[in-house]
Amino acid sequence: MTFKSERTRVKRIPDRGHYDKDTIYPIIDEALICHVGIVHENNPVVIPTIHARDGDTLYIHGSAASRMLKTIPGQQNICITITLMDGIVLARSAFHHSMNYRSVVIFGPGKIVDDPEEKWNALKVVSDHLIPGRWEDARQPTQKEMDATTVIAIPLNEASAKLRKGPPGDDDEDYALPIWAGVLPLSLEKGELIPDPVLPDSIPIPDYLK
Amino acid sequence: MTFKSERTRVKRIPDRGHYDKDTIYPIIDEALICHVGIVHENNPVVIPTIHARDGDTLYIHGSAASRMLKTIPGQQNICITITLMDGIVLARSAFHHSMNYRSVVIFGPGKIVDDPEEKWNALKVVSDHLIPGRWEDARQPTQKEMDATTVIAIPLNEASAKLRKGPPGDDDEDYALPIWAGVLPLSLEKGELIPDPVLPDSIPIPDYLK
Repeated sequence: MTFKSERTRVKRIPDRGHYDKDTIYPIIDEALICHVGIVHENNPVVIPTIHARDGDTLYIHGSAASRMLKTIPGQQNICITITLMDGIVLARSAFHHSMNYRSVVIFGPGKIVDDPEEKWNALKVVSDHLIPGRWEDARQPTQKEMDATTVIAIPLNEASAKLRKGPPGDDDEDYALPIWAGVLPLSLEKGELIPDPVLPDSIPIPDYLK
Repeated sequence: MTFKSERTRVKRIPDRGHYDKDTIYPIIDEALICHVGIVHENNPVVIPTIHARDGDTLYIHGSAASRMLKTIPGQQNICITITLMDGIVLARSAFHHSMNYRSVVIFGPGKIVDDPEEKWNALKVVSDHLIPGRWEDARQPTQKEMDATTVIAIPLNEASAKLRKGPPGDDDEDYALPIWAGVLPLSLEKGELIPDPVLPDSIPIPDYLK
């Protein structure tokens, strides 16, 4: 199976294009946020949001009052783009400077999840995606909170990944230049937990956060 | 002066919306990449790319062969969204979990920069944005490389920032629950430089990279 289509085919530097689940799904799963593109009154609108994948479905969610989420079901297609930055590539020439990255572009219709069981599961999947173990520990949603939340499902069947990794690629004649070249790695790191100022000292940090 | 318009007005949780340069410009300047939204054959397309700001102009660039860059000048408006992730907010209730973030949404027309001096300056600004000092050290662009590069300028006059910071906000009755709550900070970190495998040992790491 392939996610390739005319629309997802990587045109620039096609060697960087990939269309298989083994490449695409780990990028989706590693990223904490995605950027959702919709068309609103003929203009593009791009909004960042949290996402998660369950099998071949991508879920996003938000307030039932969200303008973006309300707009999605009426659109034939939305575009969801996910980007992981891995490093700044320092070539000898300014021209060949680049970024090491892994990105995914997904096209598809977004449908509101009405089924209560799928909706509950989608919210659990989003929670598990951010912090495994948190869903079971947190106070779970009430019916009123479920009603105030909209979940959108996007089928994963038209997507592409684009990657760059490794050292700079310079023009042959530039390799002799006495200019430092290489990669400055970038990564999203988790810091030290900051307890809520009003949290009683008696409540310890749970194991799944350590 | 304000960047506020009906389109940029933050509708959901308006307290999180900001429309002033003092809030918006530092977010643009801290982020290494942006997500560019265009409309292509009636569908939204969102592409990540490197950007930089010079005064009240945002610049993006790429190959002159790039389909996205070729499409932009024909669009009345594009949308550029920039997102910095600052932390995962762990509330006592699953419902009030959130993300600490700083994001900017910019609307505007994108114009190709034809003036050679502005184009050169824009590429320098992009380089300085990623790694100050690199432009002077690197082998600078030839005319052929300049011709192979397209630079797009977007005027910064319609934009909004949306921020969330600080501890979780739970419902009053949930503060008594024995559930850990707080923030897990996130930050984009630079790692140890990886020299190009073919770089001679005689070329030291320049000061601006240390």
